[in-house]
Amino acid sequence: MKTIVILSGGVDSTVILWRCLASGDDIKAISFDYGQRHRKELIAARTIAELAGVEHKVVRLNQWGDLMRHVLLTPVPHGHHEDEVQKTTVVPNRNMVFISIAASWAMAEGYDRVAIGAHAGDHHIYHDCREEFFAPLSLALAACDERKIDIWRPYVRSPKSEVIADGRHLGAPLELTWTCYEGREVPCGKCGACVEREEAECQ
Amino acid sequence: MKTIVILSGGVDSTVILWRCLASGDDIKAISFDYGQRHRKELIAARTIAELAGVEHKVVRLNQWGDLMRHVLLTPVPHGHHEDEVQKTTVVPNRNMVFISIAASWAMAEGYDRVAIGAHAGDHHIYHDCREEFFAPLSLALAACDERKIDIWRPYVRSPKSEVIADGRHLGAPLELTWTCYEGREVPCGKCGACVEREEAECQ
Repeated sequence: MKTIVILSGGVDSTVILWRCLASGDDIKAISFDYGQRHRKELIAARTIAELAGVEHKVVRLNQWGDLMRHVLLTPVPHGHHEDEVQKTTVVPNRNMVFISIAASWAMAEGYDRVAIGAHAGDHHIYHDCREEFFAPLSLALAACDERKIDIWRPYVRSPKSEVIADGRHLGAPLELTWTCYEGREVPCGKCGACVEREEAECQ
Repeated sequence: MKTIVILSGGVDSTVILWRCLASGDDIKAISFDYGQRHRKELIAARTIAELAGVEHKVVRLNQWGDLMRHVLLTPVPHGHHEDEVQKTTVVPNRNMVFISIAASWAMAEGYDRVAIGAHAGDHHIYHDCREEFFAPLSLALAACDERKIDIWRPYVRSPKSEVIADGRHLGAPLELTWTCYEGREVPCGKCGACVEREEAECQ
């Protein structure tokens, strides 16, 4: 398969990349710079793509980020299980923006699919990580190009603990990934993303 | 209604904008700068948005354009009715990229819908101007946000001549719009876009 991996630099997309490597796919990786909170993710993405030995494009979407500025600039309070807290991290329609651009590139380059690391742990707050979102989006992609680019989303019904277990099994460089919303030198251990990762690692 | 109009600076999106003005909508307009062939469209879009008195954002997507560079840089031969000629103007998945970003903005701003000037004359070559594309994309948008942003596409089953007739009826500034693929001082009158517009104006 010829696969374009949406690589955030976090755990989930890194495991996806390592699955594609293990399958012997032709791979290109794509990341997006839109003024996100966790900019350290982008540095992690570059390091991880280099380690994987795959072509990696970082697409600047600063002006899209500007349109979302009041969302992106809202401070994220600590605490994982409070919906209202986690909702402050929602960037409206982010996955559709990422997938549409990655799929464009796939169509232009004759690639077969776009891979994304969405998993079931994201569903409750991030509606664009659910099958109800991916299924019609796949149909829209199939309608607009003869190649019928697939959205590969193997973890859409799996918990994050399964993603991490697969990553360990495949030898994915989880130690290089970045999760924390804070973007400081070391993970804060308190934000929703840190707590979720810690819980999944212990399962 | 609160509507975000995808404004290319061409005839179709200008007529859509004037329909929204006539309906008394709250309107924002959005254009995209991705290194397109007809850059004069962007100047036209700015002039038209100013005339309409609506907020207008131009989102730079240069790096997305770079990914499409071999598509965007292919010279467009003249002649409207030759499929192979017209196909050189297809930018893969362009409408999904535009709609996804416009819909993000709509979600962030509490707007109801994204309006696009796709019409039936575009269907044959531009697959992302067909209802088979818009219908599932609408479902994907509805799945990812509680506001269920609509894609308003009133001309999806109409010929371009109907768009132009409506524009004249509404007093839309068709004389300010830009159609030609060549981007010179005056329209070439020979490229597919010029020929199609001329045919539609005479119907």
